[in-house]
Amino acid sequence: MDDRPIPEATVGRLPIYLRTLVEMAENGVPTVSSESLAEATGFNSAKVRKDLSHLGSYGTRGVGYDVAYLIHQIRRELGLTQHWPVVIVGIGNLGHALANYRGFAERGFRAAALLDNDAAKVGEEVAGLRIRSLVRVGIRSILNFAPIALAVPEGISVRKVDLAVELQILTYYEQRKAALLDVKRPGRAALG
Amino acid sequence: MDDRPIPEATVGRLPIYLRTLVEMAENGVPTVSSESLAEATGFNSAKVRKDLSHLGSYGTRGVGYDVAYLIHQIRRELGLTQHWPVVIVGIGNLGHALANYRGFAERGFRAAALLDNDAAKVGEEVAGLRIRSLVRVGIRSILNFAPIALAVPEGISVRKVDLAVELQILTYYEQRKAALLDVKRPGRAALG
Repeated sequence: MDDRPIPEATVGRLPIYLRTLVEMAENGVPTVSSESLAEATGFNSAKVRKDLSHLGSYGTRGVGYDVAYLIHQIRRELGLTQHWPVVIVGIGNLGHALANYRGFAERGFRAAALLDNDAAKVGEEVAGLRIRSLVRVGIRSILNFAPIALAVPEGISVRKVDLAVELQILTYYEQRKAALLDVKRPGRAALG
Repeated sequence: MDDRPIPEATVGRLPIYLRTLVEMAENGVPTVSSESLAEATGFNSAKVRKDLSHLGSYGTRGVGYDVAYLIHQIRRELGLTQHWPVVIVGIGNLGHALANYRGFAERGFRAAALLDNDAAKVGEEVAGLRIRSLVRVGIRSILNFAPIALAVPEGISVRKVDLAVELQILTYYEQRKAALLDVKRPGRAALG
């Protein structure tokens, strides 16, 4: 691993490149141009080239990037060459959904423990694990789905997932479509 | 509403500004500088000023932006001055969690219907609504939580929420922290 940190915006795009490249590899695509990768991900090709240059990957003129090697480089950079045990805290509906979410296990995020501070839930089995009571454990990174700000000790990374933000982005485009079509009926969105 | 579309990256940041401004308003903050808004949201202040200029909002030198008015402008731009009925498709664990998610209802996204193609679930009551069978309905925007690509008719907006992407961003930083600390034990992440 290089000592220079990669820009935060690039880190945010690496998982998107990875997902796209894995799909390409599954379809037997051996090499990819920055233009094709840009089209498949929705980023512009100059940004794609710049992002991948942070991995030390520059592609070959007229050929592009080797898909398998690029997947390896991104996995290494994101720390995905190891398995990451995940602790799920709060086993309500969302906790159940996360414990059973295929998209985690498939990508090396194995639920190692389920914790809840509700004594009535302790001992119940979910996704093959028993719910345990919430005690001090060696947590270092938190992905927070609760619509509250968390106060955490120094050195703990927190990312907040706010599901309403995504809906608000959709309403922006929905409103524009409605204005263009001059449709006056109320919009309707689907979560699926 | 202006006819010129706002850049996609700006649209993605507007809900973040909105959340921060609403918190400020609740704490009685009347005006905010672009620097303070930058610090609270984590974006740089030049980007904040540029983003808000798309709303026609330039602030007042030495005073900043009027918090209440800026909230109004962002809500109007995002189409949040109306209520958006939401249909939840697939009432498994995640569907239950979404139907009960406080963060939606609080921000004008009311679950209007719950749909599932599993006949065994039809009729069951969740969050005060009965699950109905999945039929053709007038869906215009889809927020997809399923780890699959959706094929949709033209004119339907789709945004994909991939919960694993957020975890992969955390592992990047976790790996760097571990390298800096020269800690060799496996990492552990928490979802809470």
